[in-house]
Amino acid sequence: MSGTIYGVGLGPGDPDLMSVRADRLVRNARHVAFFRKEGRAGRARKIVDGMLHETATEFAMEYPVTTEIPVSDPRYNEALSGFYADCTTQLRDLAGTGEDIVVLCEGDPFFYGSFMHLYSRLHGVVPVTVIPAITGMSAAWTATGAPITWGDDILSTVMGTLEEEALTSAMKAADALIVMKIGRNLPKVRRALAASGKADRAVLVEYASMSDQTIRPLAEVNGETLPYFSIIVVHGQGRRP
Amino acid sequence: MSGTIYGVGLGPGDPDLMSVRADRLVRNARHVAFFRKEGRAGRARKIVDGMLHETATEFAMEYPVTTEIPVSDPRYNEALSGFYADCTTQLRDLAGTGEDIVVLCEGDPFFYGSFMHLYSRLHGVVPVTVIPAITGMSAAWTATGAPITWGDDILSTVMGTLEEEALTSAMKAADALIVMKIGRNLPKVRRALAASGKADRAVLVEYASMSDQTIRPLAEVNGETLPYFSIIVVHGQGRRP
Ligand SMILES: C[S@@+](CC[C@H](N)C(=O)[O-])C[C@H]1O[C@@H](n2cnc3c(N)ncnc32)[C@H](O)[C@@H]1O
Ligand SMILES: C[S@@+](CC[C@H](N)C(=O)[O-])C[C@H]1O[C@@H](n2cnc3c(N)ncnc32)[C@H](O)[C@@H]1O
Repeated sequence: MSGTIYGVGLGPGDPDLMSVRADRLVRNARHVAFFRKEGRAGRARKIVDGMLHETATEFAMEYPVTTEIPVSDPRYNEALSGFYADCTTQLRDLAGTGEDIVVLCEGDPFFYGSFMHLYSRLHGVVPVTVIPAITGMSAAWTATGAPITWGDDILSTVMGTLEEEALTSAMKAADALIVMKIGRNLPKVRRALAASGKADRAVLVEYASMSDQTIRPLAEVNGETLPYFSIIVVHGQGRRP
Repeated sequence: MSGTIYGVGLGPGDPDLMSVRADRLVRNARHVAFFRKEGRAGRARKIVDGMLHETATEFAMEYPVTTEIPVSDPRYNEALSGFYADCTTQLRDLAGTGEDIVVLCEGDPFFYGSFMHLYSRLHGVVPVTVIPAITGMSAAWTATGAPITWGDDILSTVMGTLEEEALTSAMKAADALIVMKIGRNLPKVRRALAASGKADRAVLVEYASMSDQTIRPLAEVNGETLPYFSIIVVHGQGRRP
């Protein structure tokens, strides 16, 4: 009998925003796996600091160093693909011994999450259960103190990694907007926001729901790059009785 | 000293998917308020069945009957607006006596939620705190067993209440898609999905995360109307190593 692999969404960062189910799975887990960059603590792992059982084993899945390969180079995809295949084998073998494994995921696992790359390889091979969670964007719009969508508003979520033209037209087509994966794409994202008439309403939330959370109008932000945990929020203006 | 009004997101329906914080606020609440239709139990209230303290007082905010007024008629907005103003007064007066109040909200309160109409009237008048939650759409895409977005996918959320032309162009502009508020708009939503080339990939989830959850390809669904808790999911097809 194989164990189950749980892809557990941890929510946006505040452990109090974890679901009751995720909280229970994390506290009772005997095996805990998570992604991290070499030499880093791991973003998902940090959320559960102090919550793991003292006898839990930890399996850190360390991303291969790809900083010298451009994302467009086929070798980039090959390196990642090999890495995900390796992780899959190890998780599958452990589950094969009958052990359940909790894979820690920031936010919601199926929403632009890394766990999806394991899920697509494990699904149908061993039992996998995914626990949805509060997304980073929900924490971000809540932090702004204003609803994200009203009435019939169209909400679009776009990645800062998109080409400028695609970004601009997606922004134009939406009433309310979320921009994620901004990092070094900030200048391009700003130009697209300006071209779509949404720059003035853009609010930047860094580290939503975490202890170092900040909220500022994007217009007041200087610099060319943002921390990993950054989201831009543009609120909808729809009908409201 | 005024009490605090908590807009507590309860998540998509399964009480196990409530956040640890929401769970604690609900169980400890002395005053609980929620919207409902006349003669109904209230959708948010049902999620917390069995969780309320035995001494908790309940305040059911009953929507005025507007079935005979078309949404486009100004009297529709007036009726709703008066209703929200009344609710606001009652909550504010109770908070004024120093009591905290938990307002139960399905899903995430700031994401197309009814609480927003109280929030916009209470904000700045009495202390209001909003607790984000897992959205209905997160539960829906998790139920389909496939990730909603990959790589640079653009995700758009649209309401079935939009005009057909606006629906179609929003659907065309997106890679991954969520349709909410479908109800009697199903035939229109289907036409827009077909016109945007997304009908074949559309999956219907009813009652996501609830005990009566169903998941079917939309193509297999007959009939002209859907239950209130229905979401259409079209998965993105983006880059995946
Ligand atoms: C790979 S995606 C993962 C999204 C995650 N699965 C979710 O449900 O939010 C990473 C991006 O999510 C955004 N993000 C996630 N959580 C965040 C938080 N707490 N504060 C700010 N940004 C966050 C950032 O834009 C970041 O670049
Ligand atoms: C007024 S909106 C409220 C959305 C809610 N605040 C949220 O965060 O999901 C109501 C619509 O949400 C969708 N919905 C919310 N929860 C759902 C669930 N558990 N299953 C299916 N649909 C749901 C339906 O499309 C419904 O018409």
